[in-house]
Amino acid sequence: MIKLGLVGATGYTGLELLRLLARHPEAEIVVATSRSEKSRNVADVFPALRGAIDLRYADPAETTFEGCDLVFFAAPNGTAMQAVPGLLDRGIKVIDLAADYRIRDRSVWERWYGMTHASPELLSEAVYGLPEINRERIRQSRLVANPGCYPTATVLALLPLLESGLIEASGIVADCKSGITGAGRKAATGLLLAEASDNFKAYSASGHRHHPEILQALEQVSGQAVGLTFVPHLLPIIRGINATVYAQLSAPDACETQALQDSFERRYAGEPFVDVLPQGTHPETRSVRGVNVCRIALHRPMEGERVVVLSVIDNLVKGAAGQAIQNMNLMFGLSETTGLEYPALAP
Amino acid sequence: MIKLGLVGATGYTGLELLRLLARHPEAEIVVATSRSEKSRNVADVFPALRGAIDLRYADPAETTFEGCDLVFFAAPNGTAMQAVPGLLDRGIKVIDLAADYRIRDRSVWERWYGMTHASPELLSEAVYGLPEINRERIRQSRLVANPGCYPTATVLALLPLLESGLIEASGIVADCKSGITGAGRKAATGLLLAEASDNFKAYSASGHRHHPEILQALEQVSGQAVGLTFVPHLLPIIRGINATVYAQLSAPDACETQALQDSFERRYAGEPFVDVLPQGTHPETRSVRGVNVCRIALHRPMEGERVVVLSVIDNLVKGAAGQAIQNMNLMFGLSETTGLEYPALAP
Amino acid sequence: MIKLGLVGATGYTGLELLRLLARHPEAEIVVATSRSEKSRNVADVFPALRGAIDLRYADPAETTFEGCDLVFFAAPNGTAMQAVPGLLDRGIKVIDLAADYRIRDRSVWERWYGMTHASPELLSEAVYGLPEINRERIRQSRLVANPGCYPTATVLALLPLLESGLIEASGIVADCKSGITGAGRKAATGLLLAEASDNFKAYSASGHRHHPEILQALEQVSGQAVGLTFVPHLLPIIRGINATVYAQLSAPDACETQALQDSFERRYAGEPFVDVLPQGTHPETRSVRGVNVCRIALHRPMEGERVVVLSVIDNLVKGAAGQAIQNMNLMFGLSETTGLEYPALAP
Amino acid sequence: MIKLGLVGATGYTGLELLRLLARHPEAEIVVATSRSEKSRNVADVFPALRGAIDLRYADPAETTFEGCDLVFFAAPNGTAMQAVPGLLDRGIKVIDLAADYRIRDRSVWERWYGMTHASPELLSEAVYGLPEINRERIRQSRLVANPGCYPTATVLALLPLLESGLIEASGIVADCKSGITGAGRKAATGLLLAEASDNFKAYSASGHRHHPEILQALEQVSGQAVGLTFVPHLLPIIRGINATVYAQLSAPDACETQALQDSFERRYAGEPFVDVLPQGTHPETRSVRGVNVCRIALHRPMEGERVVVLSVIDNLVKGAAGQAIQNMNLMFGLSETTGLEYPALAP
Repeated sequence: MIKLGLVGATGYTGLELLRLLARHPEAEIVVATSRSEKSRNVADVFPALRGAIDLRYADPAETTFEGCDLVFFAAPNGTAMQAVPGLLDRGIKVIDLAADYRIRDRSVWERWYGMTHASPELLSEAVYGLPEINRERIRQSRLVANPGCYPTATVLALLPLLESGLIEASGIVADCKSGITGAGRKAATGLLLAEASDNFKAYSASGHRHHPEILQALEQVSGQAVGLTFVPHLLPIIRGINATVYAQLSAPDACETQALQDSFERRYAGEPFVDVLPQGTHPETRSVRGVNVCRIALHRPMEGERVVVLSVIDNLVKGAAGQAIQNMNLMFGLSETTGLEYPALAP
Repeated sequence: MIKLGLVGATGYTGLELLRLLARHPEAEIVVATSRSEKSRNVADVFPALRGAIDLRYADPAETTFEGCDLVFFAAPNGTAMQAVPGLLDRGIKVIDLAADYRIRDRSVWERWYGMTHASPELLSEAVYGLPEINRERIRQSRLVANPGCYPTATVLALLPLLESGLIEASGIVADCKSGITGAGRKAATGLLLAEASDNFKAYSASGHRHHPEILQALEQVSGQAVGLTFVPHLLPIIRGINATVYAQLSAPDACETQALQDSFERRYAGEPFVDVLPQGTHPETRSVRGVNVCRIALHRPMEGERVVVLSVIDNLVKGAAGQAIQNMNLMFGLSETTGLEYPALAP
Repeated sequence: MIKLGLVGATGYTGLELLRLLARHPEAEIVVATSRSEKSRNVADVFPALRGAIDLRYADPAETTFEGCDLVFFAAPNGTAMQAVPGLLDRGIKVIDLAADYRIRDRSVWERWYGMTHASPELLSEAVYGLPEINRERIRQSRLVANPGCYPTATVLALLPLLESGLIEASGIVADCKSGITGAGRKAATGLLLAEASDNFKAYSASGHRHHPEILQALEQVSGQAVGLTFVPHLLPIIRGINATVYAQLSAPDACETQALQDSFERRYAGEPFVDVLPQGTHPETRSVRGVNVCRIALHRPMEGERVVVLSVIDNLVKGAAGQAIQNMNLMFGLSETTGLEYPALAP
Repeated sequence: MIKLGLVGATGYTGLELLRLLARHPEAEIVVATSRSEKSRNVADVFPALRGAIDLRYADPAETTFEGCDLVFFAAPNGTAMQAVPGLLDRGIKVIDLAADYRIRDRSVWERWYGMTHASPELLSEAVYGLPEINRERIRQSRLVANPGCYPTATVLALLPLLESGLIEASGIVADCKSGITGAGRKAATGLLLAEASDNFKAYSASGHRHHPEILQALEQVSGQAVGLTFVPHLLPIIRGINATVYAQLSAPDACETQALQDSFERRYAGEPFVDVLPQGTHPETRSVRGVNVCRIALHRPMEGERVVVLSVIDNLVKGAAGQAIQNMNLMFGLSETTGLEYPALAP
């Protein structure tokens, strides 16, 4: 049984780890910290977990994670980078679900996140935890930077096309829409049901922190500079991301539409958590509600020069906690799908 | 492995059976019928089930359920009553999730459902499938009438109080609110998102078919005539029922509030799927989203003469498909919780 | 042109006053205060008001309401009671949309609201601003206590029955459900879309501050002690209250159902803002979205001993700001409907 | 008083015309037809209109619109084209809210709409009713083709940039999201609350009927061929469209961002129903709920080569019924804003 620590167990990502790990047969959370709820019973804070988890929140100031094999950080940006060096020194592996180790270029990270990095020496060691591009490195890693939700949906939508050179690397548009749990469990007026329901809007359209992260992954995949416009939007739903990605075909006249579809089916044939739908269909976010799956479909509007890729994930699962467990499974030599196989909740 | 047939596999109840049974370790659906979708792949109709189920819809006209151990009817009222006698004769057990066998009094049933009953000889044999009151009879049964969603939530809210004589059997009010899947998967204008979202209303306030069903169960439990006013309401949510039940204490002056709470905790101590919350708390429907649990809390407003019981279930699970699987587990000697243990999906 | 001041112009009630008064032909807001947004342009805070209002928030500490004919208090409980005596002394009328002057019995108020009343000498002068019962007194008043949202919906549902003695005054149940704006515009975790949408629950079931307010109004109407159980619930909708009220008929055998309906139609025949629907129908909250109307329908389930009344209002309009404007119209001798006549926004 | 006829008065567009015209001081609906509801009282079908409208649905087969000055067609595509020639011959003006007269090129229309046009001779006479580009022609017209909802939001987002040549006419992406009333008031499974709420998806990504309409308007505006990729998405909200439009700047190095903003402010300075927000802000759909306004904001992500324009409308108002009334006002010499001035309903 893998012994797990969890930092930040009252946010949505931490809560989702609790939910998913409650049914994992080979791992268990032995300590979960929360400043605000310390010493309270987890199931009192989240009645949905009554009967599923029996644990009290620990005070982070008094927690050493002694005996843990791995610690998940589901805490605000800037938290993990303080504690990770010490944990690694003690032989405890780490998966950070925040952004501290996602960007290899320290100066880029510091500019976007507005902090000085506390453990920049680990940036080159940390592995970007998208198994579809870094599976083997994740297996060997002791420090995984779990990807952001938008990057997961967007990169998986572009991967086959960029790898195969079927699209131009410049002029890509990623118009992304996220359920409101993506904003975290914070009491902000704009996230109230009275404000955000029956409503829709873009945000951070002039620049969002996930932009450099997506770029870095796309450039790793394509081996060249990438030009990307990325605009996120806030959906009045609880869970789910839809990325609608637009790209210019490299050789529209020479490119049969079937070749585009084939590139996806071939690339993801062995992937347990990427599901390529028939061409011309429209994946919906509820089809991945609660599960660690990315569903993707491809369109070539009016058989023209552009391709449109539709990609949906549950931002809390494949976009956060589920992918973290997938990475954990890899890091500990378990079957990659352990604890992650069950159908989506729809309706 | 129990071999299962499923009639009516495109409604919400049938779909939920498919979702839940996809993870059941000891039972599998071998045939699922649908008139409208016959010969289509189930996962093409419900993409959320891609990867979880590999089955084509069968034409009900050509389906004999040969080799099945049990058939679930998740079809409109009046369907099961035609086919059940033949199935039972062939040694195939049946759980009807519609209302055909719920009411013991044929004339009451025929008045409320507006049909002549096709197999009234089975009404006395059929067991009302609420395990909390009929567990042993369900174990022995070959025909189970799975309870309605409102009756499940309401009866579980009143059971300990009526059995213990703590409340008057007359003057009970059950004000119930249901998520919209309770209305079934039918294309009706009033169920459109554009009509039903950001909206709330009562319906059938002058009389609803679940009224005689609730009464029959309460009278079984209390052994006397019961007076009940029941008004259902339509919630703009997908899943979930909340029953708010009001009753007059039999002896308010002599009754300590703790005794009320004790009656619930004692009565449900061994029940795997009834969760009694601390007195004075407020269960919410999302705390049972997707799971086979009824959560109940008790209030005595201003320490007065009345008790208020709050009871929540997922109408598709403990209110339909989950309870049906619980009954199936009992009928086949499995552990009652098999395939039904995992946490709710919240948020 | 009536000159108006507005205290607390960033909450939902204050915002609704701004919206409604923007189209009022005979009144205008000349000063609106907000501590948190002082000196900001109202339309920058609420872009929905761009083009409709041209006003900057004033600092409440520096505002004297000089030149105002009336001041609306849409501020937290306990705010108005400090300032009202001074305003009245200066000849400025007041409508308080909070609870400071709603309860005549000071000790009851202080117990429920947990404060010492700062101007108890005004409690007997203040008029409870439900025009359907106090119209003439409101016309003469300089201080109106605008009713709460639940009391408005509940009292209007019971008024004709109590006045006519058709129901028992004891054993009344009011099961009420409110849209989330009823909780105010405060950043609380439980009000987030991620927590409150696709969800439903009761709250304050053991006792809610509107209980004594409803009781006081019902007792004024019926001239006797009233027994009431009142449980509020939180709906995942923006606006709207539904009150489902249950009462015992005084003489069920002697009472024809039509007489019940007649009592409503007769009582509300001249009321501009109470709409009695045909018996047996079900009003829905969206039918009053944005308008100052209470729609009511009556049921007698299975022609039995009880009557069920369904009553819907928009909690921000007839339950708050709209009723306040109706009261203002009365206080200044305008036609009662001025500025309040336009259809509901549905869908 | 302008006398109006309305064909198709039970759909959302027709219903919205009823709602808006109920408060129009200089026009009134004298006849409204509906096949399904003929002879029923409008307010019985739509209780939200109780007290606002007193009219019975007429049978379209028996309606001649005698005495009408103008007839609105809010009926399915292919309806107006049958009746319009006869009405025009009798001197009755027409505004068609469907698509029959929107596309000048008959063969394009017939290909996208799958019908033979019944009155193609009117295609060149019909004026595309977007006042911001065709105001004078609308004033003179007797037949106006009211624009589609997506075209309205998208064309207004691009108009200043294309007219001024600040962007390239090729490579434009319009990623549009619509509230569910855009799909019409039809009982389709996919539009049920149980299916469409807490969900999001694209549709018609390979080609949508509004594509040629948007192209035609953009090419009129820019005077050159336009390259556009347009993908619509279904939002789980009742009303509202958000268009996120991406375009390549013609001369990024020479173009100051302020010049982009200036082009919008200058172009729309006199427009009563286009509201240009400060650069860098994010309009939200609820800020136009129920009103005839398009709010627009501009972004230049990371001061790069592309511009992003965010545009929101209420699909039923500026995207349909409100714009039709704006056109009617123009056609009859009224002030353009008559009956359309009041604030949005938010929250």
